[in-house]
Amino acid sequence: MENRYPHESVTQFVEEVFCRLGARRQDAGRAAEVIVTADLFDIFTHGVERVPDYYEAVRHGRIHPAAQPEILRETPVSALVDGHEGIGHALAVWCMELAIRKAKESGVGIVSLRNSNHYGFAGYYPLMAIREHLIGFSVTNTEGIMVGTNSRQALLGTNPIAFGMYAEPYVFLLDMATTVIPAGKVSLYSRDGRDLERGWAVGADGRVCTDAPTVRACINSKKTGGILPLGGEGETFGGHKGYGLGLMVEILSGILAGGDTSNLIRRLDPWVDRNSEFFVAMDYGMFGEPAQMEAHLSDYLHTLRTAERADPAVPIYTHGEKEQRAAEYNRAHGVLIHEKTAQKLLHVAQELGIDFDACRKKIQP
Amino acid sequence: MENRYPHESVTQFVEEVFCRLGARRQDAGRAAEVIVTADLFDIFTHGVERVPDYYEAVRHGRIHPAAQPEILRETPVSALVDGHEGIGHALAVWCMELAIRKAKESGVGIVSLRNSNHYGFAGYYPLMAIREHLIGFSVTNTEGIMVGTNSRQALLGTNPIAFGMYAEPYVFLLDMATTVIPAGKVSLYSRDGRDLERGWAVGADGRVCTDAPTVRACINSKKTGGILPLGGEGETFGGHKGYGLGLMVEILSGILAGGDTSNLIRRLDPWVDRNSEFFVAMDYGMFGEPAQMEAHLSDYLHTLRTAERADPAVPIYTHGEKEQRAAEYNRAHGVLIHEKTAQKLLHVAQELGIDFDACRKKIQP
Repeated sequence: MENRYPHESVTQFVEEVFCRLGARRQDAGRAAEVIVTADLFDIFTHGVERVPDYYEAVRHGRIHPAAQPEILRETPVSALVDGHEGIGHALAVWCMELAIRKAKESGVGIVSLRNSNHYGFAGYYPLMAIREHLIGFSVTNTEGIMVGTNSRQALLGTNPIAFGMYAEPYVFLLDMATTVIPAGKVSLYSRDGRDLERGWAVGADGRVCTDAPTVRACINSKKTGGILPLGGEGETFGGHKGYGLGLMVEILSGILAGGDTSNLIRRLDPWVDRNSEFFVAMDYGMFGEPAQMEAHLSDYLHTLRTAERADPAVPIYTHGEKEQRAAEYNRAHGVLIHEKTAQKLLHVAQELGIDFDACRKKIQP
Repeated sequence: MENRYPHESVTQFVEEVFCRLGARRQDAGRAAEVIVTADLFDIFTHGVERVPDYYEAVRHGRIHPAAQPEILRETPVSALVDGHEGIGHALAVWCMELAIRKAKESGVGIVSLRNSNHYGFAGYYPLMAIREHLIGFSVTNTEGIMVGTNSRQALLGTNPIAFGMYAEPYVFLLDMATTVIPAGKVSLYSRDGRDLERGWAVGADGRVCTDAPTVRACINSKKTGGILPLGGEGETFGGHKGYGLGLMVEILSGILAGGDTSNLIRRLDPWVDRNSEFFVAMDYGMFGEPAQMEAHLSDYLHTLRTAERADPAVPIYTHGEKEQRAAEYNRAHGVLIHEKTAQKLLHVAQELGIDFDACRKKIQP
């Protein structure tokens, strides 16, 4: 049986969790919105199943829920912000709002955020810009799990790139790790006793490894072995390109913000993230008539989707389409929460004195 | 026997070719500098071996050497430029210089160029910004040869991404096609009778094809089949990510500039490119002390290069390092020009009435 809950109720519940943990109401609401949007988009790995982790992170002092962003440097087109290790999602929404305001006033807004925490679903932030008919872009560095070309040490994160622009009927929204697969896939394959594909990961010796538990142990050890960059091992399939994109993200996040690089995140102290994020909003009205440009993009994406298929049974998607279709369904039918996750959320609710049964009743009428 | 020529003499020769074709001296010099820098960096596919192609393109009316860039829209941080189908390299240098001036005045400069031609070595333009201690970024759309995920039609170009920042002893310079391999590799494998790797290309039916002449014919037909995105076929190795990066480039180039998208380049008319390019220069002084940030990046790149190797015999590189090492050698010993290319250049010289022997004498003392 599927456990589906109205997304508004889930959002309220997550907001309440962050409030009880000490967050201001607005910050809690922002974080809840990002988290539940991931569930709406069927990106479960960044949805409510992470809430118990965030709860633990607050208890261990990694996340300081009451912390407020502080602007350290500012120009009409830019800002450097210190997040003081607050809630990553709330800080990121605040920074993207700042970038959007600057883009509306000056054409472009570029915000660099240091001392942040995991900001979840990277695509959410470009989406905020897209809604305002601006181009949105965001990257973040993360805990080092990527082994660069010819290396055996994991010194880069999954370092995702998120980028988007308004189009109809589906906005274009690219949200991709620069690793070939996310770390969560290794855990999933490990749990299910499945072998990894050759070209996904390397063992402690830096050679391709298909044994999921071995790779999982490498990632946990934070020493050698880990996940390969997009393009896989060596240069034959462009692994050096994925490695380079990871480095581009590292420059735009850790280096620009004066924060730690991925190789240090959670290594100096397993309960300290302090990762860095980067946000851009750009007004394409500087280059042409926005409605015309959006129509041009919509037409082009339509041409791609309706092209001749390699396999007639497999549709051609453009980026963000699957997620937007899922969101449409989930808004109407409720977001899916696995029973195991629901149990963990109940535990968090009990710890914090939230009446989870009331929430359940409300969300399962 | 290796044919090596002092790079200054080669640059002078290329400049003379463009001048005789009707370019202004400054534009010819700019184009020659970009082209010969590619040879210095051992990126031969974008070096002087292309000069005979450019000569043909001028003769067929694709490139209008005397055309001058025109600013159509401008703000303190941006410009939309019409290239009037001039020399791609010269237009691009002009646009990057404009972006750099804006970055110095306003923190960031973003220039969109329409009606351009092939601009050669994409990494050259970020390099211009890097020299000024700015972050440099450039993308361009190109003739459609990439077959997106689940498609069988080549509707995207190799759509390269070039990005860089100053570091010592090697600046970081990423310059990558968003396809898994460049089109030139298919020609090379076809000539040498070698099979392509599985995951590089698909045939007319949209299925993986390892026969190089078949793929070459697909590319020439401009119908179905072609090269796969970075990440290869389907989604198993992240092919949808390379496809998405190609689309990001398409938005930043063709869509922003109001130009053609890759699927139309050289299809409406084989002798018309009209591709679109995009240039960004960004002053990281907005976020911190530049020298400190550059030292931070230099340290991090050093950590990567000196990490434990997968194979002790294979060095770990950071991006642009190989090319900068090559340039050091080639500046001292001359750039390598294959005999076949030299013959073609001699032919161009004869057609244009340039005393190629004098050039040869000067460059082979």
